Amino acid sequence: MQKVLPFTKEKIIEIAQEYPTPFYLYDEAAIRQNARRLLSAFAWADSFKEYFAVKAAPNPYLLKMLHEEGFGADCSSLPELLLAQKAGIIGEDIMLTSNNTPVEEFAKALELGAIINLDDISHIDFLETHLHLPKTISFRYNPGSLREGNAIIGKPEEAKYGLTKEQIMTAYPIVKAKGCETFGLHTMIASNELNLDYFVETAEMIFELVGQLHDEMGITISFVNFGGGIGIPYRPEQEPVDLALLGQRIKVSYERLILGKHLPPLKICLECGRMITGPYGYLVTKAIHYKNIYKNYIGVDASMANLMRPGMYGAYHHITVLGKEHLPCDKTYDVVGSLCENCDKFAIDRQLPAIETGDYLVIHDTGAHGHAMGFNYNGKLRSAELLLKPDGSVALIRRAETIDDLFATLDFNNL
Amino acid sequence: MQKVLPFTKEKIIEIAQEYPTPFYLYDEAAIRQNARRLLSAFAWADSFKEYFAVKAAPNPYLLKMLHEEGFGADCSSLPELLLAQKAGIIGEDIMLTSNNTPVEEFAKALELGAIINLDDISHIDFLETHLHLPKTISFRYNPGSLREGNAIIGKPEEAKYGLTKEQIMTAYPIVKAKGCETFGLHTMIASNELNLDYFVETAEMIFELVGQLHDEMGITISFVNFGGGIGIPYRPEQEPVDLALLGQRIKVSYERLILGKHLPPLKICLECGRMITGPYGYLVTKAIHYKNIYKNYIGVDASMANLMRPGMYGAYHHITVLGKEHLPCDKTYDVVGSLCENCDKFAIDRQLPAIETGDYLVIHDTGAHGHAMGFNYNGKLRSAELLLKPDGSVALIRRAETIDDLFATLDFNNL
Repeated sequence: MQKVLPFTKEKIIEIAQEYPTPFYLYDEAAIRQNARRLLSAFAWADSFKEYFAVKAAPNPYLLKMLHEEGFGADCSSLPELLLAQKAGIIGEDIMLTSNNTPVEEFAKALELGAIINLDDISHIDFLETHLHLPKTISFRYNPGSLREGNAIIGKPEEAKYGLTKEQIMTAYPIVKAKGCETFGLHTMIASNELNLDYFVETAEMIFELVGQLHDEMGITISFVNFGGGIGIPYRPEQEPVDLALLGQRIKVSYERLILGKHLPPLKICLECGRMITGPYGYLVTKAIHYKNIYKNYIGVDASMANLMRPGMYGAYHHITVLGKEHLPCDKTYDVVGSLCENCDKFAIDRQLPAIETGDYLVIHDTGAHGHAMGFNYNGKLRSAELLLKPDGSVALIRRAETIDDLFATLDFNNL
Repeated sequence: MQKVLPFTKEKIIEIAQEYPTPFYLYDEAAIRQNARRLLSAFAWADSFKEYFAVKAAPNPYLLKMLHEEGFGADCSSLPELLLAQKAGIIGEDIMLTSNNTPVEEFAKALELGAIINLDDISHIDFLETHLHLPKTISFRYNPGSLREGNAIIGKPEEAKYGLTKEQIMTAYPIVKAKGCETFGLHTMIASNELNLDYFVETAEMIFELVGQLHDEMGITISFVNFGGGIGIPYRPEQEPVDLALLGQRIKVSYERLILGKHLPPLKICLECGRMITGPYGYLVTKAIHYKNIYKNYIGVDASMANLMRPGMYGAYHHITVLGKEHLPCDKTYDVVGSLCENCDKFAIDRQLPAIETGDYLVIHDTGAHGHAMGFNYNGKLRSAELLLKPDGSVALIRRAETIDDLFATLDFNNL
């Protein structure tokens, strides 16, 4: 998929006068359009709900924007619940999918009226002992060796998440006996997966389990959540998942495995994060140094503190040199940050046009799991987040960290 | 090397009443003793200097303590320079070893009178153009394929750091001609290495280069810095580097390659981080959940936000269950945090005594590259740092992050 930009070099120069590089820039129009594309693909499903995975882009302005489009929030920690609340997302527009969950997190979820998706069968007792069981309850299913995970998430039987099949069959009758009335079923077994078949198989696995719970245990599941995990084409030669086709394929499965078996209708949910905002966020950085030793290096003013994925996972992120889009990519560079870690490289042996100090580099597909994963190693500061609005104006939606922020937890007075 | 603790379960229970888990606890007496061991090993070297690698444990209380023992600070960023200054470390007690360095970082180093160790030959012009060249200057040498890196740091010719041999031979005459008067030579080509021979080889490589610069270029090097990289025995079956032996081996090389060749005496420097504080810092966490699915999981209240190394590198960190030190390790657990990431595991298939909710787990060897590398993914908060003083009292040297800290860069008013 060709990598295009929603801004020009001139626009970035203008923005950088007010907000120094590095900064993240999110494209509001594209994110809204993408959100509508997902909803449209599942328009056939009555009361379809996407819970945006907050961890992917935990910015309240983005959450609010997605909420306006009809999305809820998928939260996995107390701060994420608070952030959703700040963005005006409450009640069943929140699903808490947490693991190894502390009491205060469950308490906040109950207070907000969020849907609680239990990760472990022992959490039934835990909730009852410390708080109370809500009327609506969901469980996360881990199929173990019954299903292969994808390359990224690993084997389900080695994942810490969810209940086994046997526990699933036991858990619902227990909570039903305890007075729970509405039941959900959740799973999540892939991450950054581009193969559409994978998600259809997951949906079918869940539909079949819904049928089994109905037929064998007398449990009526009201909503299912297939998790997220839909990947994005980080590399130009990759193609995105065809959402319309995905919706249609799952519809066919739904008609066969739910309607065809005269099971009660299901509310269908997803909790995508990466595919919603990922392609529409850009890390903008400036070349500040050229170095030639055994290789050619372009040093930029961003570092792993701003974007961990290349250094942490060796992940590919496409890079455009602004104003040089049409020049031949006849130079080979490592594009590096200034962290005192050799893995602080945004690209290794990348073919790019000749870069000069002062050039703006745009690191693509950083709208999810980008800013969110930044750290302060080496005392590096996390950057600002900006929103490019449909009218072309730019809003600051998170200011850059300062030295004072970095030192906020230190009291120098007792030194 | 047997893993022992400088505190009892009772002491931790007492501390946890004031400072909730998880927290880091550093053993002041042991760190001071270790610092003295290093200095003693190099007591033969006139004006030996250890510059503590700030990035390993960027806490001003630890920096000040080490400064009291005679250590300087190895800084690699502007915030690290500021932190050293706050701890009372200035002038040539600071060495700035940075890469892809911005102007303001060099400016601060010049203001503090720090020793500047240039990472690139082009930084000579850069300094002259934007600021000025100091009288004392050092260069970082990258031997490329002339030397193999260790397993952790990778091949030197693929590392972004330093000058090539040819550049080294060119750089000193240039800066001498420009009026620089005192010269240093630095290298750093291993990380977390336990093989003592490696450091002796590095010292000899540097001594030989000092001789070559003297004989061929008429350059007198006044100080050398062999970098850090001395590893620690993370696993019980490993042994630490014998510092006394290391000092003696390097002394023999020094006598042969410097004194034996009638070269002027050298000040010898190191910039160890990990081996100074690493073994004497402990991450204390509480078991909050037990889960049995395809494997047995112990969920603790710490997560990858507090300690990245196991999740990021698959690094081993020894775990002691307090009060159960003498029980048989006959259970197999994954010890996990609550991050919504399957790599958030402190141990995989670890043999431990039976653990109950409420047990305190001590994660060993977290005194370096521990708290420093924490992130806020999933909205997780970084923990407090405590100092266990020689008199048994405990001082808070960094408070735990709060939700307000996490949200400090967000302005909710425009939502």
